[in-house]
Amino acid sequence: MLIGQGFDAHRFAAPDTHRPLWLAGLLWDGNGIEGDSDGDVAAHALIDALLAASGLGDIGSLFGVGATAHGAGMHGVDMLRETIEYLAARGFVPVSASVAIIGNRPKIGTRRDEAARVLSEAIGCQVSLTATTTDHMGFTGRGEGIAAIANALIERRS
Amino acid sequence: MLIGQGFDAHRFAAPDTHRPLWLAGLLWDGNGIEGDSDGDVAAHALIDALLAASGLGDIGSLFGVGATAHGAGMHGVDMLRETIEYLAARGFVPVSASVAIIGNRPKIGTRRDEAARVLSEAIGCQVSLTATTTDHMGFTGRGEGIAAIANALIERRS
Amino acid sequence: MLIGQGFDAHRFAAPDTHRPLWLAGLLWDGNGIEGDSDGDVAAHALIDALLAASGLGDIGSLFGVGATAHGAGMHGVDMLRETIEYLAARGFVPVSASVAIIGNRPKIGTRRDEAARVLSEAIGCQVSLTATTTDHMGFTGRGEGIAAIANALIERRS
Ligand SMILES: [Zn+2]
Ligand SMILES: [Zn+2]
Ligand SMILES: [Zn+2]
Repeated sequence: MLIGQGFDAHRFAAPDTHRPLWLAGLLWDGNGIEGDSDGDVAAHALIDALLAASGLGDIGSLFGVGATAHGAGMHGVDMLRETIEYLAARGFVPVSASVAIIGNRPKIGTRRDEAARVLSEAIGCQVSLTATTTDHMGFTGRGEGIAAIANALIERRS
Repeated sequence: MLIGQGFDAHRFAAPDTHRPLWLAGLLWDGNGIEGDSDGDVAAHALIDALLAASGLGDIGSLFGVGATAHGAGMHGVDMLRETIEYLAARGFVPVSASVAIIGNRPKIGTRRDEAARVLSEAIGCQVSLTATTTDHMGFTGRGEGIAAIANALIERRS
Repeated sequence: MLIGQGFDAHRFAAPDTHRPLWLAGLLWDGNGIEGDSDGDVAAHALIDALLAASGLGDIGSLFGVGATAHGAGMHGVDMLRETIEYLAARGFVPVSASVAIIGNRPKIGTRRDEAARVLSEAIGCQVSLTATTTDHMGFTGRGEGIAAIANALIERRS
């Protein structure tokens, strides 16, 4: 049994950019998150936890960094699916995973089951979501951005 | 084997509120933590990790949010016990759990064994506590509030 | 199977201190991290995760705090090795571990495999590293300091 830890944080885009808000594999109301990809911190932290548990690097080494990177413009769920294919080709299978989202918005609880289902289907095992705020403290509390902490268990079948 | 990740953060109450300081299931010297319940970030992060591992939502979905919520005024340890009953009724049994507390005070090390024992008895398996500061950086370092990161392993016996 | 969670954060030293930069067991270019030991937040968070999983306290209880502590001046990797000896003497063996480093520098990806190998050799099982920034938000984003979140799985063989 192998364990991985992931973390990600991104800044909310300025409202006048009309950027769509993608998080935990879903499109939400409200202005979006900055990033070369769709800015989905939940998916990104989960990808880091999965790659870490497998000992296969992190999201930067797999998808690159910057506007011309392989991952540029990709949705978090598509990155997750590609990550799982990458792991499967090397004999790694996810057992269970979990993501804690930290931010003022969107209100995850209103669509938690839907989001968990999308992420679980993308990686082929249970993915759980929790969500919390930081009582107006720090960069998440001031609404500057959003963060996510993830962990994952992986088995090697090779 | 199922894994869960939890996070929580709350603001310290103003000294003139004379709010008692509950953390990791114990009453400590010093002014307390804000929150609809007793503000015990260690217990709350642990509850989120346990619910996440079980795929049963988070502390907000189980206990509600706000002054009229089911969890309003509850102590963290009582919320933990209720969480474990909720899990047990659905066939989930905690295997092991751990909480990292981030803040300037109280000094967890002085009563770590006592706190770990109280949390372990509440959930029926080993719960460990670590504590660290952030060298005067960020909202925890400035003493505005306190945070906790937790993880948990759960087995399904159904 | 036992799980542990660790966290650590330290401030970057002022450039004119010419302090060497130790992180994840390696010496990097750039000015260093403050701390009574070498300030290696990755090693320290990992030690906390290992001690937590074993129910044996945290880095403060094992190595002390302050300039006269047992751990003062020690390198993170040496502290890791001593932690593993402490665990082994009590029947605990690490199964897998992972560290997510949060900060602007150094660029972990350039030497990830080397760092993971050093940490893995120190504890005797796979240790993975991921690295991310916080998009100029918070104390890590402003470059004031660096943080790390770690988890670990431990088995008891006694
Ligand atoms: Zn990202
Ligand atoms: Zn709380
Ligand atoms: Zn440290």
